[in-house]
Amino acid sequence: MSRTALIVIDMINSYDHPDAEALVPSVRSALPGVRTLLDRAREEGVPDIYVNDNFGRWRSHHDEILRNVLSGPHADLVEPVRPGPESMFVVKARHSIFYQTPLEYLLQQEGVDRVVLCGQVTEQCVLYSALDAHIRRLRVCVPEDAVAHIHPDLAEAALRMMERNMGAEICTAGQVRLR
Amino acid sequence: MSRTALIVIDMINSYDHPDAEALVPSVRSALPGVRTLLDRAREEGVPDIYVNDNFGRWRSHHDEILRNVLSGPHADLVEPVRPGPESMFVVKARHSIFYQTPLEYLLQQEGVDRVVLCGQVTEQCVLYSALDAHIRRLRVCVPEDAVAHIHPDLAEAALRMMERNMGAEICTAGQVRLR
Amino acid sequence: MSRTALIVIDMINSYDHPDAEALVPSVRSALPGVRTLLDRAREEGVPDIYVNDNFGRWRSHHDEILRNVLSGPHADLVEPVRPGPESMFVVKARHSIFYQTPLEYLLQQEGVDRVVLCGQVTEQCVLYSALDAHIRRLRVCVPEDAVAHIHPDLAEAALRMMERNMGAEICTAGQVRLR
Amino acid sequence: MSRTALIVIDMINSYDHPDAEALVPSVRSALPGVRTLLDRAREEGVPDIYVNDNFGRWRSHHDEILRNVLSGPHADLVEPVRPGPESMFVVKARHSIFYQTPLEYLLQQEGVDRVVLCGQVTEQCVLYSALDAHIRRLRVCVPEDAVAHIHPDLAEAALRMMERNMGAEICTAGQVRLR
Repeated sequence: MSRTALIVIDMINSYDHPDAEALVPSVRSALPGVRTLLDRAREEGVPDIYVNDNFGRWRSHHDEILRNVLSGPHADLVEPVRPGPESMFVVKARHSIFYQTPLEYLLQQEGVDRVVLCGQVTEQCVLYSALDAHIRRLRVCVPEDAVAHIHPDLAEAALRMMERNMGAEICTAGQVRLR
Repeated sequence: MSRTALIVIDMINSYDHPDAEALVPSVRSALPGVRTLLDRAREEGVPDIYVNDNFGRWRSHHDEILRNVLSGPHADLVEPVRPGPESMFVVKARHSIFYQTPLEYLLQQEGVDRVVLCGQVTEQCVLYSALDAHIRRLRVCVPEDAVAHIHPDLAEAALRMMERNMGAEICTAGQVRLR
Repeated sequence: MSRTALIVIDMINSYDHPDAEALVPSVRSALPGVRTLLDRAREEGVPDIYVNDNFGRWRSHHDEILRNVLSGPHADLVEPVRPGPESMFVVKARHSIFYQTPLEYLLQQEGVDRVVLCGQVTEQCVLYSALDAHIRRLRVCVPEDAVAHIHPDLAEAALRMMERNMGAEICTAGQVRLR
Repeated sequence: MSRTALIVIDMINSYDHPDAEALVPSVRSALPGVRTLLDRAREEGVPDIYVNDNFGRWRSHHDEILRNVLSGPHADLVEPVRPGPESMFVVKARHSIFYQTPLEYLLQQEGVDRVVLCGQVTEQCVLYSALDAHIRRLRVCVPEDAVAHIHPDLAEAALRMMERNMGAEICTAGQVRLR
């Protein structure tokens, strides 16, 4: 039996870093896709797991990170995709969602063998996380209208790498099979 | 240059598990030792890092875990050693403080090469964490009056294993060198 | 479906380290137990996997390590338990059989969910490996007449820790269920 | 003080896999670059470490893998870059040179904080290894004339990702600073 989880990467974000200018329009385009995935996952009983940078705030917890971001200038990019009451939350310190995080353990515990990755950044965390999922023998699906990039050409190459070299399924948020 | 961190293991605890009856008196004895270490660390500018089980509450954050525990029947075992405003907090899912947690990364970032371990359980998480610290080439110190056990004879064997086989320094909370 | 592998820890050994004097008599006592397990595993089609320290010889391979040891003064402790033509071999650099080795990957590939641990040292590598297996949700069995120790009292405590705290099955080499 | 190691990735290869046809001409172009790096490293006393797939041959050791490959139809692609008497050798089972291998431990032991990556495949193992090195805070250098690809456009994107997103230095085998 196979089970899928929806992974939302780095969407709790203050967008105050140097690449934000290039990133924000792409995030705006990806929001409806992420929203569609969250709605579908919650309706179909598929777990959604937020894996998010802690921005070096080791004293913080996710409510504080969320509060902080929601009171900032880019709240409109976070509000539509905020965690729900059943969402799970894993803090990461570095690029990949798996590096020194309990995500692998959590997925095993939940019986998950397939992950749908959405969020940001396509040619960075999403690519690295797809690789680390593939190395751990998880199947990977990336809806290309629910991931955001900084460089369109690198993002396009990253999607092809995921498809060709990591066996990932590339589709749209509407097409994703969740169950 | 060497830098030490104080690691407080699993002290945010509701003590509602089967071994609690044997564990609680030992925790009570260890509280003054842990308190001494926390006072000294905060006075001397040594970082204190709580590494704590999340009890499978992946939707929780540490404030919620803490609140939950402080409103329970064993609040008196938690209140004296609760995290301070500068304490850092790392969630773990399994026995060792290093297994699928960002602790190793955090210690590197803080320039820490020596850890003082206190908390519980001497012959379980403390032993496993001492091993995982030693394997990662961190120096380990365990103040024996600031760790709590379930089985006194296994705890005594665990302390000897740490001293003999993992090169750990076994001392008291008053003796520990922090800087 | 469950599948077992026999893991032979650090038996390819030159016994020229400081603890050898205390260890060698215990290894001699454990040899028939290890031999029984190897015979039974090979007869019953259960994979045997040697996980062995490389003694810092990063330029060596296992034939060279084996040759080196078999031409040394303690060849009689190695000869009876040398790898067979079907044995698999994993090199480790540190204490646990899992730390920075491909063993977890190999076990998954072979569909193994239960390990029988034999070899040395009961209160060191065997204990650490049992813990790391347990953390990874593998079931663990340790035949107490097929493991060797340096300190009898620490070994006895280690076996109790494995049984009580890691859910390990402690039995004899003759009793072990392999299939 | 900083120390560099030269890492030679997957060059001990039988080239009998489906992508070989696209890969072989690129390997042929990269051979002089890899050869230059090996010569320079051995002359300047910089350690060279081969990290190579074991092709599922868990019973093999590197001499056997090497012998096997040198007696195959593509020996001319291996002979010029074979390990020297001082080369170190680490077996990997999966894509990245760090995933479930002792490489991180070995690099720490040797005091290495910077790696020069050469070999194959630019848009696969080399990219993944650069990422895993960067995540571990190692500095990374990739001489673009000493790495081989399957898809030129993905390779070009991979080099830009390494340079832009992983802080890697991209240069030529002649330009690389080794000490």
